[in-house]
Amino acid sequence: MVNDDTVEALRDADDSRFGGPFLGVLGGMGPMAGAVFMERLTALTPGSVDQAHVPAILWSDPRIPDRPAGRAGMGPDPLPWMRNGMRHLERAGARAIVIPCNTAHVWYDALAAAVSVPVLHIVSAVVDDLRRQGVARGRIGLLGTATTLRLALYQRELTRLGYTCVVPDEDELARHCAESIRLVKMNHLIDARGPATEAVVSLLRRRVDAVVLGCTELPLALPHAVRGEFGTVMTDSIDALALAAIAWHAAAVGS
Amino acid sequence: MVNDDTVEALRDADDSRFGGPFLGVLGGMGPMAGAVFMERLTALTPGSVDQAHVPAILWSDPRIPDRPAGRAGMGPDPLPWMRNGMRHLERAGARAIVIPCNTAHVWYDALAAAVSVPVLHIVSAVVDDLRRQGVARGRIGLLGTATTLRLALYQRELTRLGYTCVVPDEDELARHCAESIRLVKMNHLIDARGPATEAVVSLLRRRVDAVVLGCTELPLALPHAVRGEFGTVMTDSIDALALAAIAWHAAAVGS
Repeated sequence: MVNDDTVEALRDADDSRFGGPFLGVLGGMGPMAGAVFMERLTALTPGSVDQAHVPAILWSDPRIPDRPAGRAGMGPDPLPWMRNGMRHLERAGARAIVIPCNTAHVWYDALAAAVSVPVLHIVSAVVDDLRRQGVARGRIGLLGTATTLRLALYQRELTRLGYTCVVPDEDELARHCAESIRLVKMNHLIDARGPATEAVVSLLRRRVDAVVLGCTELPLALPHAVRGEFGTVMTDSIDALALAAIAWHAAAVGS
Repeated sequence: MVNDDTVEALRDADDSRFGGPFLGVLGGMGPMAGAVFMERLTALTPGSVDQAHVPAILWSDPRIPDRPAGRAGMGPDPLPWMRNGMRHLERAGARAIVIPCNTAHVWYDALAAAVSVPVLHIVSAVVDDLRRQGVARGRIGLLGTATTLRLALYQRELTRLGYTCVVPDEDELARHCAESIRLVKMNHLIDARGPATEAVVSLLRRRVDAVVLGCTELPLALPHAVRGEFGTVMTDSIDALALAAIAWHAAAVGS
């Protein structure tokens, strides 16, 4: 039966204004990092009215199995879950996808292969941000999950570009990085600040020129307001990815 | 041709683990309110691991035309844009939808009719939150856009339940509420605090028992940390809607 709702739906479906370059965001890893990505995407976009901002679809599936455990073979494989989210984003209209989770980038090739739209890489976004902040060479301190650091997600690209990478030792990784990430995932953002601060300080003792917050939980433990105290260049992988997305969108709409 | 990717896609599509009660969020009105809704949804969910959180899909289309202007016939009609988002959310798997924009609820009936899944109403969520905070009767001060207040979105329901509503006069609406909302939409959250504070104070002078932040921009102008200073019960329509969504999800998964 063709009722009024059907007529409306057909009329709306015909409306080409609704299309355009939507950004897809594969979130939920963790859910707070995905939400904060959306917030930073908004805060970092220049513009004084709603309509100036980047249209986006966030797929936030916090049930995606733990990435470090999955990679280590100690838990279910997160890849089929992540692929499911990528496909939903593409089907819903995303013309490019970002993944605000560093560890998930260990599966980057398989995720990019699951869709036909570009997937902006978080490491490229961080490199662009380092250069934007004037760090084109030197010693880069890396913080992140043990998985990200052991699999050299950042090291390979940074070394290729001539940077020297400095990483925490296994004991620091456990006591500082992993502990801070665990507390953020429990929503204990204030408690997470102590171990995250220790993590940064231990890299500064090794005379780094910049610190990469290479896990999307770590920026939540170290709010922007406290970062100035460290007196070093810091690159926040959430902000870097948001800036890459804003640049993609500006190019896609031809502005 | 059936290649490896196709085989993988078919295998994934068959995987029933990926379903379940996803929450749909019609955001972008403004984009910061939608992002902060996702953040509060996460912060207010009890749970210490990612997997305890509510699976959600955020449709953030900031191009949705201005709601107050559209309602007044001074700008394009936002309804077809909002309906488009509702349908995308349903198609992507949402089993219930929330709309973190009070003014959009002026179109609630048309939006609810566009989908076959329940749409949790922001006014019901706020009423539940008032009761949760112990305010079951009395004088309720309302802040929001001129559209929301003039069309009595909150007043009708609150009056029906026996509350007395107190609203700002037209001058206060323009100088305090509208100004604060405008500054939030420009990302000037700190500047927005002054007029938002004035708006609350002018209601307190009229001896209200509680204040409803009945526009999803206003909670962004008055962070949780500063609300205690007012010495009154405050209901934040973003938090209230997030709590309603968490309760819906808990019931849907049978916990």
